[in-house]
Amino acid sequence: MAKILFVTGNKNKLKEARELLPGHDVEQMDIDLLECQGDALFVVTEKARLAYSMVKRPLFVEDTSVGFHCLNGFPGPYIKALTSSNDISAIPKMLAAFPDKGATGTAMIGYADKTGVKVFKGEIQGTIVAPRGKNGFAWDSIFQPEGMKKTFAEMGIEEKNAISHRMKAFEAFRRFLG
Amino acid sequence: MAKILFVTGNKNKLKEARELLPGHDVEQMDIDLLECQGDALFVVTEKARLAYSMVKRPLFVEDTSVGFHCLNGFPGPYIKALTSSNDISAIPKMLAAFPDKGATGTAMIGYADKTGVKVFKGEIQGTIVAPRGKNGFAWDSIFQPEGMKKTFAEMGIEEKNAISHRMKAFEAFRRFLG
Repeated sequence: MAKILFVTGNKNKLKEARELLPGHDVEQMDIDLLECQGDALFVVTEKARLAYSMVKRPLFVEDTSVGFHCLNGFPGPYIKALTSSNDISAIPKMLAAFPDKGATGTAMIGYADKTGVKVFKGEIQGTIVAPRGKNGFAWDSIFQPEGMKKTFAEMGIEEKNAISHRMKAFEAFRRFLG
Repeated sequence: MAKILFVTGNKNKLKEARELLPGHDVEQMDIDLLECQGDALFVVTEKARLAYSMVKRPLFVEDTSVGFHCLNGFPGPYIKALTSSNDISAIPKMLAAFPDKGATGTAMIGYADKTGVKVFKGEIQGTIVAPRGKNGFAWDSIFQPEGMKKTFAEMGIEEKNAISHRMKAFEAFRRFLG
């Protein structure tokens, strides 16, 4: 199996990546990377570039963002700062006064090698709801994908991986890897 | 007058800095700086370090953060991303469902020279209110400092500069500069 290096400290993302890249031996490297402020594309591109400058081997990083439609895409890449410092129920509460509960979840994979960085993107539309379900991680319990009756956290990993933003990004990445 | 270099693209911050550093000739340099994700202290320290590595002259940068108490300090340094993509009235709306409207405004000045980076900090406590007033900039119209009946945007520049987080940071910086 072809080895591919995933620079991440997130065990949940590693697990999903291994499910989503069958036929590849996903090796983890956990290094402390500075992350930039900016839009999601800029953040993942700089992260991949920086990781490559340190590791000097082909690698990928992944970054997830969530944009609330009523806040014109905020917090985007800063969703981690919000979920890591608050109970997840704070998010539907933040949106309580806005009629539009729509949100876009985006996963971006930044692949870096000596030729530069390529980015693969997957998106999903959904609605922010009160927390339901115990599976998944991060904001899975408050995100109900469009057309579904379950939140990501009410789905099994196969069910989530059949529709998720991360799956779509990995699909594109897998086609590129061949 | 002693020259001192302020790396900023923000004309409002430049204006306030000139008011707050009497006896110093504040020279502006507007360069595009990568900003890091992280807590406010880390963000300003890295910004100053990066600016110095590019400019190689003693300089300072300034960074402002706002932490909503009900969100355990979020958005902190990401307040700019929120205010730049939304009407300011979105912020009190975000907090509508939380009883605690308290917020802490923090200004940090990162001064860099060949010996490294020193950080000078000023804080102010206040309450997030519906927008009032036309002066100031950024979140001035929704921030009512503790013990005051006016928002920052209802004050003149002298009145604001007599109590603000930025004034406190500049006071400390001014004592250091001598």
